[in-house]
Amino acid sequence: MAAKLVKNALGRLVPTEVNGKPQIPYQGVGKYKPDYRKYAPPVASCADFPTGNKLVKDLKEALLKAGLRDGMTISTHHHFRNGDLVAIQIFRIASELGIKNLVWFPSASFPCHAEMIDYMEDGTIHHIEGSLNGPLGRYCSEGKMKGIGILCSHGGRYQTVQDGEVVIDIAVIAAPTADYFGNANGVTGPSACGLLGFALADSQYAHKVIVVTDNLVDFPCIPWQIQGNYVDYVVNMDKIGEPEKIVSGTTKITKSPDRLLIAELTAQLCWEAGLIKNGFSFQAGAGGTSLAIANYFEQIMRKENIKARFARGGSNQYLVKMLEGGLVDYILDGQTFDLEGVRSMRENPRHVDTSPFTSYNYHGKGNFASLVDIAILGATEVDVNFNANVNTHSDGYLLHGIGGWQNCLFSKTVILPIPLFRDRIPVIRDEVTTITGPGELIDVIVTERGIAINPRRKDLLDALKNTRLPLKSIQELKDEAENICGVPEKPNLGEEIVAIIKWVDGTVIDAVRRVITG
Amino acid sequence: MAAKLVKNALGRLVPTEVNGKPQIPYQGVGKYKPDYRKYAPPVASCADFPTGNKLVKDLKEALLKAGLRDGMTISTHHHFRNGDLVAIQIFRIASELGIKNLVWFPSASFPCHAEMIDYMEDGTIHHIEGSLNGPLGRYCSEGKMKGIGILCSHGGRYQTVQDGEVVIDIAVIAAPTADYFGNANGVTGPSACGLLGFALADSQYAHKVIVVTDNLVDFPCIPWQIQGNYVDYVVNMDKIGEPEKIVSGTTKITKSPDRLLIAELTAQLCWEAGLIKNGFSFQAGAGGTSLAIANYFEQIMRKENIKARFARGGSNQYLVKMLEGGLVDYILDGQTFDLEGVRSMRENPRHVDTSPFTSYNYHGKGNFASLVDIAILGATEVDVNFNANVNTHSDGYLLHGIGGWQNCLFSKTVILPIPLFRDRIPVIRDEVTTITGPGELIDVIVTERGIAINPRRKDLLDALKNTRLPLKSIQELKDEAENICGVPEKPNLGEEIVAIIKWVDGTVIDAVRRVITG
Repeated sequence: MAAKLVKNALGRLVPTEVNGKPQIPYQGVGKYKPDYRKYAPPVASCADFPTGNKLVKDLKEALLKAGLRDGMTISTHHHFRNGDLVAIQIFRIASELGIKNLVWFPSASFPCHAEMIDYMEDGTIHHIEGSLNGPLGRYCSEGKMKGIGILCSHGGRYQTVQDGEVVIDIAVIAAPTADYFGNANGVTGPSACGLLGFALADSQYAHKVIVVTDNLVDFPCIPWQIQGNYVDYVVNMDKIGEPEKIVSGTTKITKSPDRLLIAELTAQLCWEAGLIKNGFSFQAGAGGTSLAIANYFEQIMRKENIKARFARGGSNQYLVKMLEGGLVDYILDGQTFDLEGVRSMRENPRHVDTSPFTSYNYHGKGNFASLVDIAILGATEVDVNFNANVNTHSDGYLLHGIGGWQNCLFSKTVILPIPLFRDRIPVIRDEVTTITGPGELIDVIVTERGIAINPRRKDLLDALKNTRLPLKSIQELKDEAENICGVPEKPNLGEEIVAIIKWVDGTVIDAVRRVITG
Repeated sequence: MAAKLVKNALGRLVPTEVNGKPQIPYQGVGKYKPDYRKYAPPVASCADFPTGNKLVKDLKEALLKAGLRDGMTISTHHHFRNGDLVAIQIFRIASELGIKNLVWFPSASFPCHAEMIDYMEDGTIHHIEGSLNGPLGRYCSEGKMKGIGILCSHGGRYQTVQDGEVVIDIAVIAAPTADYFGNANGVTGPSACGLLGFALADSQYAHKVIVVTDNLVDFPCIPWQIQGNYVDYVVNMDKIGEPEKIVSGTTKITKSPDRLLIAELTAQLCWEAGLIKNGFSFQAGAGGTSLAIANYFEQIMRKENIKARFARGGSNQYLVKMLEGGLVDYILDGQTFDLEGVRSMRENPRHVDTSPFTSYNYHGKGNFASLVDIAILGATEVDVNFNANVNTHSDGYLLHGIGGWQNCLFSKTVILPIPLFRDRIPVIRDEVTTITGPGELIDVIVTERGIAINPRRKDLLDALKNTRLPLKSIQELKDEAENICGVPEKPNLGEEIVAIIKWVDGTVIDAVRRVITG
């Protein structure tokens, strides 16, 4: 816990060692160049899979056959989001078996995973890497987790596995359909959740791979989003997830007048700046404001007879409607956010499943995120240098994972439509509680009381010279919020580091400190 | 050339070192277990691909940017079979640049590649690994190649790359459709050839990857059979191949009465042995006899109302007809053998493209070939222990690559329908010129004068106890051929090893010796 701290390129003090492993401080966008090789998993042999039938009795048998033991790293995936029924079972079994000090490496965690706290309390889990959310984030924030949390983006998770920073001993992949060979997909079956891209790195690099399904079909399972040639064991169980709960959080268009205004301003800005044009591309999230923006985009596109080449998902009913209405040629989807998304991916060859490898991995030969014209993202806080925070709240609590947020910062124009304040706490600050992404990649902040454009984007400022949009400096926006709400208090934080935030290249962009309670 | 020779598990003398690299002698089926890691290619960074646009002026510029220099290993692929227009261009450019001692690593070579002899003569190419065919095989057989040829199966090629036995410096992938990011497929575009699976290992493991296309489309190129995230450079040129020439050799049903008899006997044997039943699977080649067998299968299936779960390709018009007629649920295709195959793969989601990784790689966690019920294969020679040869002719000339032949030996029942003699030379011998596959994996030899079942297959012999099929011992078949044609002469071979034949696990199953000419 008394690891050495160094100042990184953003001036943040970060540890050079975490959970016994050396760490590299963030060096700036594109500055850290890897000079090493990919992780090399062990070579398997078909001689050990003579029949190709990998079915075992149950998850416990699969874990035992996979050699489950103290200190291992176990990965799971969040395709079911808050409807996941498999991850908890793994650690229940491990706890019953008296296994200790596991590392849980999920692609994201959700409130349904709160029971993991029990397994941290009883020593089954040492710490969580990858993502910390809600109740688990709160537990970590209060300094209760044995190890230090490590948060990475979806692309960073692929990078960290590919590069061997995290070696996965056992990957457990919950798959809505699979065959006895281990081929698996998420688009068919009673628990269909869309796709299984978040498990791709795990299937490729984990030493042992277990596929768990509740819809076992004859070989071949088509399509195979996960290839059975990477899979060791297959488990058939009653129910792996509740697909209706993949609809997490707001997935309906906002009705808030302020947020609708923000959405309208965002769409208007994109139009006036010339970003909405034939062949353009965009990515918006599934929050109420993002959906409203997509809706305004649709109105503009219909009116001006403009067609997008592709939209990046998280897909949802609104995006599917645009695809089916011929307004976008393709959805390149990383995650279905509702069941319309699942249906469309199953039925429509133009609704294409992608993975963190294709879309987000920074240690590849390019990725899709950097090809997107407009990315609409959120933030909990933004500072006057456009650095933004998505992980912690202004009270210091670590309540959100990074998701694909950092990866999308590489899109050509990054816009954060955010309210000027939330619960009377200003969002724009002199300094954010945690830097998740560097300001140099964030181009526009749209609030209900004005729009700030990053001075680096002279082209955008030029294009909007004659606009009637309410352009302001970010300092002006901050002052305006503080005039209304007062200067916000600093969170009450200790010195102790409870988690680190990794940048897309594996370096440490910031550290999260313990919240002092009571 | 004076490498040490050892006797392998089949009693064949094989070298322990080839082209300066150590080799492991064949140890028996499933006996050699890898205890090492996969090859680890260098980690790339998106910082080096800031726009994602990888287009360069021409192939020469791409090769220069990829760092082409003496001694490199350059890989190409045979999706165009005898219509390939790209491989030759690489070595023309290299020869003009004065580059020496390259290793050419094709997935297969064809008569259209005869010009490579010029580049072996002028020192541009040191030797060929992977596959040697026709004129190139003849050149090698006569001891004219500087290095020793190394032949591997399609699955062995994936294995050898995955395991790092061959490190590809530059892979050049001729793709009928591609986008500027390097996503590529073989099913669309004017030169559509089907799929690009043979280039998969190369895209994943080569240090530099060049995609060459004559149909550049806007991002995203859908489907992406090759993922642009592995690709360094994209070249757009006039014409990459002649898809009409992917129809190589016989792809029509034989009209020879002897061969039709062999085909009929094969189908009848499968039926009587109970192998043709609901949910079964089969793989047949594209030769005239194989096509006739598939045709007889179809007749039986229609008559008996039987449906196959899947057929493995090489696909062709006959297999497509079975798919479209509802006689098979899926074609799992590794290579389209005619343009009907290309069309079907493009249009029909049940015509699924596979790769040597999914289908054939022995150093994976199982592969598809081992799940196939009936595999129909050819051979140039078979010995009395059922060991078979597909590489050399009885005169010792190395005229054929291995293709998927070795990999298919792992299917549940392997049948070789072959004539008892060719040009009055008996096919069944005391000893084959070259062992490509061990007899323990070969179950049935069907000739026009009788059927020999491997005594290991007691189950088959039992099932056919009361058959009227002309069952004989393999020795009886051999004697019968020799009674008609006389005892065949041995080929006139020198001591010098000109090529080795690798087994699916990377061990050396046999060595090919120089043919003494004149």
